[in-house]
Amino acid sequence: MRFFSDNAASVHANVLAALADANAQDTAYDGDALSARLNMVFSDLFETEVEAMWVATGTAANSLALAAMCAPHQGVICHREAHIEQDEAGAPGFYTGGAKLMLLDGEGAKLAPEDVEAHCAAIRDDVHQVQPAAVSITNASEYGLVYRPDEVSGISEICKARGLGLHMDGARFANALATLGCSPAEVTWRAGVDALSFGFVKNGGMNAEALVFFDKSLAADTHYRRKRAGHLQSKGRYLAAQILAMLDNDLWLDNARVANAAAQVLAIVAQDRLVYPVEANEVFIRLSAEEAAQLRALGFDFYDWGEGQARLVTSWNQTAADIKPLAEAIAAL
Amino acid sequence: MRFFSDNAASVHANVLAALADANAQDTAYDGDALSARLNMVFSDLFETEVEAMWVATGTAANSLALAAMCAPHQGVICHREAHIEQDEAGAPGFYTGGAKLMLLDGEGAKLAPEDVEAHCAAIRDDVHQVQPAAVSITNASEYGLVYRPDEVSGISEICKARGLGLHMDGARFANALATLGCSPAEVTWRAGVDALSFGFVKNGGMNAEALVFFDKSLAADTHYRRKRAGHLQSKGRYLAAQILAMLDNDLWLDNARVANAAAQVLAIVAQDRLVYPVEANEVFIRLSAEEAAQLRALGFDFYDWGEGQARLVTSWNQTAADIKPLAEAIAAL
Amino acid sequence: MRFFSDNAASVHANVLAALADANAQDTAYDGDALSARLNMVFSDLFETEVEAMWVATGTAANSLALAAMCAPHQGVICHREAHIEQDEAGAPGFYTGGAKLMLLDGEGAKLAPEDVEAHCAAIRDDVHQVQPAAVSITNASEYGLVYRPDEVSGISEICKARGLGLHMDGARFANALATLGCSPAEVTWRAGVDALSFGFVKNGGMNAEALVFFDKSLAADTHYRRKRAGHLQSKGRYLAAQILAMLDNDLWLDNARVANAAAQVLAIVAQDRLVYPVEANEVFIRLSAEEAAQLRALGFDFYDWGEGQARLVTSWNQTAADIKPLAEAIAAL
Amino acid sequence: MRFFSDNAASVHANVLAALADANAQDTAYDGDALSARLNMVFSDLFETEVEAMWVATGTAANSLALAAMCAPHQGVICHREAHIEQDEAGAPGFYTGGAKLMLLDGEGAKLAPEDVEAHCAAIRDDVHQVQPAAVSITNASEYGLVYRPDEVSGISEICKARGLGLHMDGARFANALATLGCSPAEVTWRAGVDALSFGFVKNGGMNAEALVFFDKSLAADTHYRRKRAGHLQSKGRYLAAQILAMLDNDLWLDNARVANAAAQVLAIVAQDRLVYPVEANEVFIRLSAEEAAQLRALGFDFYDWGEGQARLVTSWNQTAADIKPLAEAIAAL
Repeated sequence: MRFFSDNAASVHANVLAALADANAQDTAYDGDALSARLNMVFSDLFETEVEAMWVATGTAANSLALAAMCAPHQGVICHREAHIEQDEAGAPGFYTGGAKLMLLDGEGAKLAPEDVEAHCAAIRDDVHQVQPAAVSITNASEYGLVYRPDEVSGISEICKARGLGLHMDGARFANALATLGCSPAEVTWRAGVDALSFGFVKNGGMNAEALVFFDKSLAADTHYRRKRAGHLQSKGRYLAAQILAMLDNDLWLDNARVANAAAQVLAIVAQDRLVYPVEANEVFIRLSAEEAAQLRALGFDFYDWGEGQARLVTSWNQTAADIKPLAEAIAAL
Repeated sequence: MRFFSDNAASVHANVLAALADANAQDTAYDGDALSARLNMVFSDLFETEVEAMWVATGTAANSLALAAMCAPHQGVICHREAHIEQDEAGAPGFYTGGAKLMLLDGEGAKLAPEDVEAHCAAIRDDVHQVQPAAVSITNASEYGLVYRPDEVSGISEICKARGLGLHMDGARFANALATLGCSPAEVTWRAGVDALSFGFVKNGGMNAEALVFFDKSLAADTHYRRKRAGHLQSKGRYLAAQILAMLDNDLWLDNARVANAAAQVLAIVAQDRLVYPVEANEVFIRLSAEEAAQLRALGFDFYDWGEGQARLVTSWNQTAADIKPLAEAIAAL
Repeated sequence: MRFFSDNAASVHANVLAALADANAQDTAYDGDALSARLNMVFSDLFETEVEAMWVATGTAANSLALAAMCAPHQGVICHREAHIEQDEAGAPGFYTGGAKLMLLDGEGAKLAPEDVEAHCAAIRDDVHQVQPAAVSITNASEYGLVYRPDEVSGISEICKARGLGLHMDGARFANALATLGCSPAEVTWRAGVDALSFGFVKNGGMNAEALVFFDKSLAADTHYRRKRAGHLQSKGRYLAAQILAMLDNDLWLDNARVANAAAQVLAIVAQDRLVYPVEANEVFIRLSAEEAAQLRALGFDFYDWGEGQARLVTSWNQTAADIKPLAEAIAAL
Repeated sequence: MRFFSDNAASVHANVLAALADANAQDTAYDGDALSARLNMVFSDLFETEVEAMWVATGTAANSLALAAMCAPHQGVICHREAHIEQDEAGAPGFYTGGAKLMLLDGEGAKLAPEDVEAHCAAIRDDVHQVQPAAVSITNASEYGLVYRPDEVSGISEICKARGLGLHMDGARFANALATLGCSPAEVTWRAGVDALSFGFVKNGGMNAEALVFFDKSLAADTHYRRKRAGHLQSKGRYLAAQILAMLDNDLWLDNARVANAAAQVLAIVAQDRLVYPVEANEVFIRLSAEEAAQLRALGFDFYDWGEGQARLVTSWNQTAADIKPLAEAIAAL
């Protein structure tokens, strides 16, 4: 059974059904009836007028957002372990035309406002040094920790004071929200976020993510950039259909709750091994090489995460019953 | 009824079925069982060992191919009306890091070898002028004309002599092949093509195109570039599934034959109006503004194409019966 | 004797003397006393408040100006024979991050307003097509023709109406001004120019050009871009010194008048051979291969310019006496 | 008296004289007689066949070298305090098309082979992570420490094993050599360096640095890139002249010896305050805010360097007599 990533999970039946339902002739690109609904449904969801567009991957969503905020000669502040730094093959450098990621440390892959401020303050305000233009945070973080609204506000206050954009990589935004219990608005624009990469693929979607601009002035150029990056799909209605299916009746939240609940099952049996508290659908545990081998021998698949640690990711389609064998195996170590 | 683009058509039932069949847990990105089959099936199809990868759009396929052939300080020779120049928002400039498209004229949006040679010969071999590194041709062309194998060879001989790569934009490669009747090998690598953007989306696919490298040395870096461009989808198996369904039992050719046959129905009734011979699934006709208005009043949708001309594109799902109303309407003008 | 380019000429004694005069310790980059004077002297010269900065080459000045006006996904309209297109190795593509040069025809390498308007009007206002963001004109043009103030205004009116920036490549601005007799202001900002590459190197300087922003909002980012391009010299005072020497007592105009006068001497003897009227310091003449060989046998050096034509460029240090041997040789053909 | 940078120093009389001597008409760009000598004189100096070209700044030299070694999707390993990271406004990101600087720690801004190896080993060999393509070291380092030949070899062995290029930023190469006493070859190509930015501007030049390729295969494209970056000056002979003057009779070494000797004078009086041993012409000392203010009140100009430290840079034109007042002032603190 696979716990190496929620990317490995299948696609929710509603999403597949939505693809079939969308299978009629319509206008190409994003001129179709389904794509036309996105701005409205996301504006409803976020209780403010937003501009939203589909893209196929989180990497594209992140990079397009950052390119909208950051000129080629500027920089983006992020955590040293952020996905944009670690796992996107330099995509932000490509999309921005060579901007620099400015790497900060921080517990559990979360940024602390004082570290952001200190980093900015240490940069000389002259043309020799790259000046920051944006901050990117990940919610839930790469270690499955969740930013609370006030934590986001703490960072956005610095951003406002210094004229920086604030991007939230929400590849697991649903998992964060399922834990936070607040409204989507509270932890995003009300807390000062300008653009959100809203992930669906890890949460039951197939290949559609949403890029949501709360600062709509950032959207205009992004339409051009999306096309220029080869991300304006000609049959875009099949991406819109996926997203609409995920938002319908809060399927996105239901799915995330299942994954989070499965993670909690593991968190309980592995409570003495936890590297971090489990706040979403990722469980980081201390595990010796021998123990890891034991689990793998039983058919459980997962990534080692540095020396003596492992990462277990639960998915939208793993019920408590599904998770039981792994929970028992961990308990039995 | 829509004739403005084959992009508007629906997705073939086999493709949808393949998505459902693929809907199990598997390894992410292109490590899955379906993606793993692509090199083999395309190598079989082309009767030589190729390296193939899925991407979501033809723009991405084209740009990745060109970036593999052309350094930022070099250029790509193409037709002035090529899709890469006219309709991709400058994507080649983005992917190559600023390379230049060198625009040639040519009947029916096809390049003639002598024009390619003349263009190259006129460039001074010094650092002040951008040096060409590749030629890109479109088969079928933007005017629905088909390059024969000897025509491709005529261009590739210049490419070989001058050390240029040769890319074929095959957004409608299926339609070209359906007309040519030759093997896929004959009009591609046997005629000197190094990389092919093999289109499926206009021909019954949903959002998967193939980038096929005959010159496999171009593929290695492209894997990195694809990721860096946000085009390595985490659930890539759903793209591979589409392509495999399209190749299975030559569905791609069957679909193209339907579209081409529909175009021939129009070509016959519009023979006195044809701007170009109809060799694929695009029909360019002379049409006055009044006549265009008449057709539109009857519910037919299509693009004007310059002064007094219109473009009618037929699709994989338009049978001769489906096309009859438009044919009759044209005949009745 | 060399007539192949004014680049070949030596450096004026005043410029050399200014380098020696500048040879004391001062603050690095452009923090020195000489660099600090540039904004003021150019503001005086242009009778308006400008922001000016030195760079080493015209290519850098042009590209920095265009990058300030044009996003990576946009385009710059220029003449097909413009230096930025023909002779800068794709520098605009590099500096802008892949923007497109949109090439127009036009008599004598000059753009006509109606052609600029027609080109803009033909671009669909959608994300598939690259949208223009700027126009670049060259004064004097690549064929030595001069834009009059009203001709510049004709173009700038379109720019204003369409929100495009207007750049003037003034590699031979001095030669143009010497002919026009108007004030520098009249043919630049009063005629709607936003940024000027003001050339000194061809006119007696060593390696300092000025980039002058009439639209000062374009300057802020350019300071970063200049540094980022490696064009912020640490001993910048030696560039400022050159420019100040050239502006002192209108040396730039005096030098240009000498070169222009020399060109007129040639224009008179070659009046039946002229391809274009001679309005600056370039003389394009019809010349058979035999005649060209004859002149070269006499020690005159120049470029062929297409079939049966030659380009003769006069320089700031060629007096009428210096030019006499060539004039006689042409007369004797 | 200024000790904030050797950039502030004046130009050596021989360099000025060389500019005057070069002041005749010659072919433009680097086709002139002086530029033509560069390959030969540097090949002599380095006892192997090299390809050398002038550029105006060290930033341009560094970035051109890195762009020749590193594709846009790759990375360059360097010290966290390297000039290319700290003080070049992101120029490497610009020239490489978005490559990533991979920052390592290391005593005195020097890289240790084991840290380079560890960094490389920690990068997963997959398309999600940016792969390193080059290492850049600075000799003398940003803290004025000198790499010995065996230290360079220690790094280059890793480079060879992993297929990485090795670049040396030699903005103060002369100061390093003056200390090392070895031949230029020993600490460069014989120790595995592929390209060297050979600085002259800080050492008595005006605005000419040399980019020296020991791996000549890297040079061909660089000629295009230099032009494309606006760094191919049309009157390049005045840059070649400077470099030839600096190399003539080892002026570069003589100048560096003067600066180094001045630094030693300071090192002796400040021996209890030294942050690092003084191995070139930079002296980093512990200095309280009050002490710094005292020195400045006496007319000495220098940079603070973090909390409680200061950087004093000596120059080619500061003799032991010139340095005496500062030495006495430090002694008197």
